[in-house]
Amino acid sequence: MTNARRRGSDLTEAIMRTTMELGQEIGYAKLSIEAVAARAGAGKHTIYRRWPSKGALLLDSLMSLNGPALDYPDTGDVMADLREQIHAAVDLMARGPFSHLFRALIGEAQHDPKVAAALNERFIAPQVEKTVARLKSAQDQGQLSPAFDLNLAMAILSGPLYFQFLITQEPLSHEYVDGILEALFTGMGPRP
Amino acid sequence: MTNARRRGSDLTEAIMRTTMELGQEIGYAKLSIEAVAARAGAGKHTIYRRWPSKGALLLDSLMSLNGPALDYPDTGDVMADLREQIHAAVDLMARGPFSHLFRALIGEAQHDPKVAAALNERFIAPQVEKTVARLKSAQDQGQLSPAFDLNLAMAILSGPLYFQFLITQEPLSHEYVDGILEALFTGMGPRP
Repeated sequence: MTNARRRGSDLTEAIMRTTMELGQEIGYAKLSIEAVAARAGAGKHTIYRRWPSKGALLLDSLMSLNGPALDYPDTGDVMADLREQIHAAVDLMARGPFSHLFRALIGEAQHDPKVAAALNERFIAPQVEKTVARLKSAQDQGQLSPAFDLNLAMAILSGPLYFQFLITQEPLSHEYVDGILEALFTGMGPRP
Repeated sequence: MTNARRRGSDLTEAIMRTTMELGQEIGYAKLSIEAVAARAGAGKHTIYRRWPSKGALLLDSLMSLNGPALDYPDTGDVMADLREQIHAAVDLMARGPFSHLFRALIGEAQHDPKVAAALNERFIAPQVEKTVARLKSAQDQGQLSPAFDLNLAMAILSGPLYFQFLITQEPLSHEYVDGILEALFTGMGPRP
């Protein structure tokens, strides 16, 4: 790595860290690119060149957290594998700094279509892809109904988590995840 | 009604209308209480006394839209009744001004806990209550598994709609609703 590149990477790290520290301190609603630049000792234009909006800065900060990879295990038991991975996901969503940052980022995505598109492309779509791949493998092994739309299964697994995280804002729990999984696998019709 | 009261109610109407017009024109992100006051010809403090935050103003504007009551029919066929009501809900979510206003309001709720609480209390909780009541009536008639957690059923019905509305931001369709209903009723396990 050249010195210039290393300096660039140090600066990026400092800016991501500052974004999260300042966001936690003053609240992400009040966070501005100017304030991050001042605290990180970087030029405002340096930051704007790379992160044209607050949402872009929040997204890169979230990606930099690099939490658990959230890859699905494949033990052959699809229910257990989904449970393990989604428990890890809700643990992440339940804790700061990820929790606050993720909430703020989704807030920004509601009025900034570029942020919404980038969030989907870089964070959501890869998760959808992994989930659908794990479900496909189970479907191929006869563990799921062959006609079931796996993108819909993904939305049914994720949707209630986002409903609780963004709308009712009640704490997410492993029990909640287990209930969703059970419901998705067995349905709520009367047992024959 | 006294003249003072009628003037108050006219002013409220003007402010709700101005909030939505201005929000559509300049985008809700740029909307400020000051700008609404100026356009509506009202004193800034008059507005702040009643709506202490932009989120509070957005919520009352949303409630003033008074869309379809979104009450569930009870024809005895729970699947058909849920379908009819949720189709009406996604039609509402798909169209401006409701769509833009609702999105902006949920965005505000991500950094303003008072707005989140008010949104839940005044808009979400009544819907949850109606949905759970309709499901309970079906459960009492043996149309649903007796042990099924009806609050969870509500989250599974709503969650995927919010996932699509807020996260992937793809258009909501009746077909999507039908897929969720079908999945919830039959589950995705292999047919016995």
